[in-house]
Amino acid sequence: MKQSRERVVAVYLVETPYSLEHTAGILAGEQSTGTFTAVPGETDDLKREFGAVVEGIRPLEIVDVPSLPGASVPAGHSGGYRRGEVRISFPLHNFGPSIPNLMTAVAGNLYELQELSGLRLLDLELPEAFVRAYRGPRFGIEGTRELCGVSGRPIIGTIVKPSVGLPMEALGRLITELALSGLDFIKDDELNADPPYAPFALKVETVMDAVRRAADRTGKQVMYAFNITGDMDQMRRNHDQVVQSGGSCVMASINSIGFTALTELSRYSEVPIHGHRNQWGMLTRCPQLGMDFRVYQKLARLAGADHIHVNGLRSKFYESDQSVIHSIRSCLTPLGDSRLPMPVISSGQWAGTAVDTYAATGTVDVMHLAGGGILAHPDGPTAGVKSMKLGWEAAVKGESLAEYAARHPVLQRAVDKFGAKS
Amino acid sequence: MKQSRERVVAVYLVETPYSLEHTAGILAGEQSTGTFTAVPGETDDLKREFGAVVEGIRPLEIVDVPSLPGASVPAGHSGGYRRGEVRISFPLHNFGPSIPNLMTAVAGNLYELQELSGLRLLDLELPEAFVRAYRGPRFGIEGTRELCGVSGRPIIGTIVKPSVGLPMEALGRLITELALSGLDFIKDDELNADPPYAPFALKVETVMDAVRRAADRTGKQVMYAFNITGDMDQMRRNHDQVVQSGGSCVMASINSIGFTALTELSRYSEVPIHGHRNQWGMLTRCPQLGMDFRVYQKLARLAGADHIHVNGLRSKFYESDQSVIHSIRSCLTPLGDSRLPMPVISSGQWAGTAVDTYAATGTVDVMHLAGGGILAHPDGPTAGVKSMKLGWEAAVKGESLAEYAARHPVLQRAVDKFGAKS
Repeated sequence: MKQSRERVVAVYLVETPYSLEHTAGILAGEQSTGTFTAVPGETDDLKREFGAVVEGIRPLEIVDVPSLPGASVPAGHSGGYRRGEVRISFPLHNFGPSIPNLMTAVAGNLYELQELSGLRLLDLELPEAFVRAYRGPRFGIEGTRELCGVSGRPIIGTIVKPSVGLPMEALGRLITELALSGLDFIKDDELNADPPYAPFALKVETVMDAVRRAADRTGKQVMYAFNITGDMDQMRRNHDQVVQSGGSCVMASINSIGFTALTELSRYSEVPIHGHRNQWGMLTRCPQLGMDFRVYQKLARLAGADHIHVNGLRSKFYESDQSVIHSIRSCLTPLGDSRLPMPVISSGQWAGTAVDTYAATGTVDVMHLAGGGILAHPDGPTAGVKSMKLGWEAAVKGESLAEYAARHPVLQRAVDKFGAKS
Repeated sequence: MKQSRERVVAVYLVETPYSLEHTAGILAGEQSTGTFTAVPGETDDLKREFGAVVEGIRPLEIVDVPSLPGASVPAGHSGGYRRGEVRISFPLHNFGPSIPNLMTAVAGNLYELQELSGLRLLDLELPEAFVRAYRGPRFGIEGTRELCGVSGRPIIGTIVKPSVGLPMEALGRLITELALSGLDFIKDDELNADPPYAPFALKVETVMDAVRRAADRTGKQVMYAFNITGDMDQMRRNHDQVVQSGGSCVMASINSIGFTALTELSRYSEVPIHGHRNQWGMLTRCPQLGMDFRVYQKLARLAGADHIHVNGLRSKFYESDQSVIHSIRSCLTPLGDSRLPMPVISSGQWAGTAVDTYAATGTVDVMHLAGGGILAHPDGPTAGVKSMKLGWEAAVKGESLAEYAARHPVLQRAVDKFGAKS
């Protein structure tokens, strides 16, 4: 019997007190035909057809201290813990094109093995048949641009604050002000979905009323991402409310609902899904555990996220700028022939970060969200939005922020206020 | 305005280069009314009604090296990283009784904050109103016992191996042999759900045919947990297939599908849900990140898991026996008036581990799964099952394994074969 052709490749960062070869073999066995001991029925034919295969091992450094607790050590262990990059391939027919069963196959119990003192899923290479089975973003960059009426520059947006407790009248006034400022996009805070103190139907009515009135004056309807994160029936109900009221976007906290609920929502939704990645730090901040964003964004886009949060340069979070840049690039790397999701840049953003972001990524296919960078502009939100657009203009024209600001007072005022902080 | 009465308390293990008081304040602000800077509308009234409150701080050790990368340090930082247990309460009305929105509130972006070099969610205390909104396990211990016809002792089970690639005829023969052995429970491997090489409908037919034939001879129908892990529509379809064929249990990989899909499945399912926790290591193995099992099992049972995997004593995994014992106890701790889920003990189990498990937990309300410990008994699976039951008899009677084995040859044979390994 020949080895199955369509295969998924998982790339791991491994740390182990054993040899890398021995450990890679255990990973492959544990997650396919093997168990901790030979069992009847595990024939050579079965292994050939269903076995996972170690495709490559790249040794890295040796460290003195194990990164994670609970690793066993071989007899006569000298104390070193070997790190290496291990590539393992799995026959697709072991689990089929299914995100949940893929995750059980490539991750499963591996994080708990005694043979490992570190394990991180670095990448997943998925065959066409897998990608085709999930349609991915239904709107993505193109569909979102169309709905927003924005081309050639990023979609500029902001977040409703305070995130919790804002009375309806105050929300209505805020949305009116923001919608009149020329913004393309406004989102609910992730902390605010469908709380008892602010019934969702009333929120939608209040927001859409403000959005429509502003559109009557400006000729442009701002896209509002309503946070519908919740149980499945609640998400469907709230999605329907948004669509019936003429809304053009829903938002979901991806890790709160999980990839399976996201897939289900994507199959149901008539508008783009704004994917928030809160709780992502839990899966990635320990460098020898969890997974890289490369893997995460592939799963999120396959499941149907049209927009995916990636933090921003010089943000309030622990993540390095280099990592943010990698995240933006990974969202914009094709995955089969599915639509590209729009990376969402946020946290500590203002006109100045536009220049650096473009310099590092060379793309305008992003959503750029700023809270204070727009609302706290000395001349108000309308000036704040203008300064953001000017920041991107400077970036695309290859001009320095200082030069462009010297010719555009609205940008200069932003530089004066926010420039020192960056 | 008075402080809202119904509150959720989250208990964190924190590590920070700043003071614990300062850091606790940031956690509370970030996840309720605050953002990184004061915004208009964040009034004192709003803070009183919606603000999270630091309820207590218990300082722990100070360490020299930060556990996680990317933490900022205050000016003049001496180099120490303070650890402490921090209790923060959130008004329930900020998010309502909703698992996904609870998680965004109590975890959210906290894992990514620069002010932290470690953050672990240790516990969640949920008000009655929250617990009532989710009905929890629909069957739990009681309903599972009834379906299995087992009382006064653990439910004894095993796992189909090889996990991947077993031809249908071989599967049928294996199930017949296992069902005739007196086992109460058999489960699919988590790696085997609905793969292209073994159509689910055919698997159900094959398994249920063997189960029914065996029941005709033994008078007892073994409970088979069919792994229906998959996308939502696939899970519903496969659940229906199981129920229509007279099956009495479905299985789902909780982390593969997420809590929201589990909630949806629980509202749909007519049989108990066997909750497998593969990928759990990713969320818990780094001691200064992720969450404790105490939190995880609360969420899993609220979402409707009837059985929850907890590893086993002396398993092949990194987890300590003490941690496994804590996990069993936490599943058996009441949560409002919802049904108790059944802890599932597995990995490296045999008759001998029964004695130690009972000594440590004092309960028989567990499912005890053994692969080799049953199938590899020198006198075959029937003897293997008998030895497991005898192990629990000895445990409950307070007799030592050696004494009881001396009087029961079937147990003695198990001790001779598996005793040295433990």
